[in-house]
Amino acid sequence: MAAGIRLYIDGDLAEGVPVAASADQAHYLGRVMRLGPGDAVNLFNGRDGEWRAVIERIDKRSADILPETQTRPQVEAPGPWLAFAPVKKTGTDFIVQKATELGAARLIPVATANTQTGRTNTDRLTATAVEAAEQCERLSLPEVSDMQTLDALLNTWPDDRRLFILDETGGGVPLAQALAGANAGAAGFLTGPEGGFSAPELDRFAKLSFVARVTLGPRILRAETAALAALAVAQAVAGDWN
Amino acid sequence: MAAGIRLYIDGDLAEGVPVAASADQAHYLGRVMRLGPGDAVNLFNGRDGEWRAVIERIDKRSADILPETQTRPQVEAPGPWLAFAPVKKTGTDFIVQKATELGAARLIPVATANTQTGRTNTDRLTATAVEAAEQCERLSLPEVSDMQTLDALLNTWPDDRRLFILDETGGGVPLAQALAGANAGAAGFLTGPEGGFSAPELDRFAKLSFVARVTLGPRILRAETAALAALAVAQAVAGDWN
Repeated sequence: MAAGIRLYIDGDLAEGVPVAASADQAHYLGRVMRLGPGDAVNLFNGRDGEWRAVIERIDKRSADILPETQTRPQVEAPGPWLAFAPVKKTGTDFIVQKATELGAARLIPVATANTQTGRTNTDRLTATAVEAAEQCERLSLPEVSDMQTLDALLNTWPDDRRLFILDETGGGVPLAQALAGANAGAAGFLTGPEGGFSAPELDRFAKLSFVARVTLGPRILRAETAALAALAVAQAVAGDWN
Repeated sequence: MAAGIRLYIDGDLAEGVPVAASADQAHYLGRVMRLGPGDAVNLFNGRDGEWRAVIERIDKRSADILPETQTRPQVEAPGPWLAFAPVKKTGTDFIVQKATELGAARLIPVATANTQTGRTNTDRLTATAVEAAEQCERLSLPEVSDMQTLDALLNTWPDDRRLFILDETGGGVPLAQALAGANAGAAGFLTGPEGGFSAPELDRFAKLSFVARVTLGPRILRAETAALAALAVAQAVAGDWN
């Protein structure tokens, strides 16, 4: 249950130093929530923890907000990365929203051989992530990347970060077993498109030392279900749910 | 990747005994997928396994389909139950779809003190579950209950089935820890409404021997995210994903 309104702010947060709300935030505070000068809100920026703040001045398109007290320090466990072949629009929004709630640190849309959708809109996905972070009491935003090719993803993937491929063809290790002894904050997951990974893609995975193919049981999960399930299991058995 | 079209059929499935498709299924097969006599489909009914079958006769509103070979026996691990306070329409559909993919055996909409929505449409939720079961290669349907009160749920809950309350107030045991040694097929989960459980409801939970309050980490998950995450973790650590 969210304790009042939470807003993500770009700028630094420090006691007594007013920050400017965006036009959208001013509209939300003044018109939607009908708040005015003296009303309290909570602010976070991903760096300076969470602050109790009061609205100093507000009009239709702008507002100044004054941080008064830091209510939570910036302490957060590092989160897993999620790379995903985008699915149709609502599916991608869904992945971004839920992955933010589940604490993913990076969200990377990936074009694979069978990916049907075109470029993703990074600004829109970031806005979805901001809204989810505000609502779930998270202190940070996930970093949302521009869409990249699978080649680019694999070529730049850090060697010391394990990449779990969610493989609906059933060739992998059960997820909980694969995660035994792992650290969710040092792991990444990759979900494929509706058509699955191509044979050359699966061959390439087999040759990469940082990759492990995992399986999510006997049913064929939709891509967005698989992504969300993997993040939940990672946080539960190897992340910040313990 | 689904191997062809799968349809859920009400009637018995046995070699050489034709079954009737529903009007919607006939429309789907003939008009949407443009199949005709002699084309193959897969059938399941939750009792007789999965069958390879061929269309014998089809017109706009009906079709006869002939089961030829049983391709999978009816072997499925029992699934967990999910009781949930319905959220707004898309959220409830989402819960039913994803819970079906994740192998839930029963889906029970529950009216709690802070539940905002009215009665659920059991026929519509069942249709959503059928579609999800067809797509995820499941051999059974979850049983979708009519909405009931929390009192009715608790009064009729089997004593030997552990009920894990997904409690966003943070008072519970971490989920993976609570599930250690449990059997997902003998467990149930309950998610609350947007406003959370009331104080009297939480008091009542504390007095019930079959209830355990669990927590899903430091972020506040939406009800549908919590439901889905709990089922995924249950299947991964104590269910049919291993």
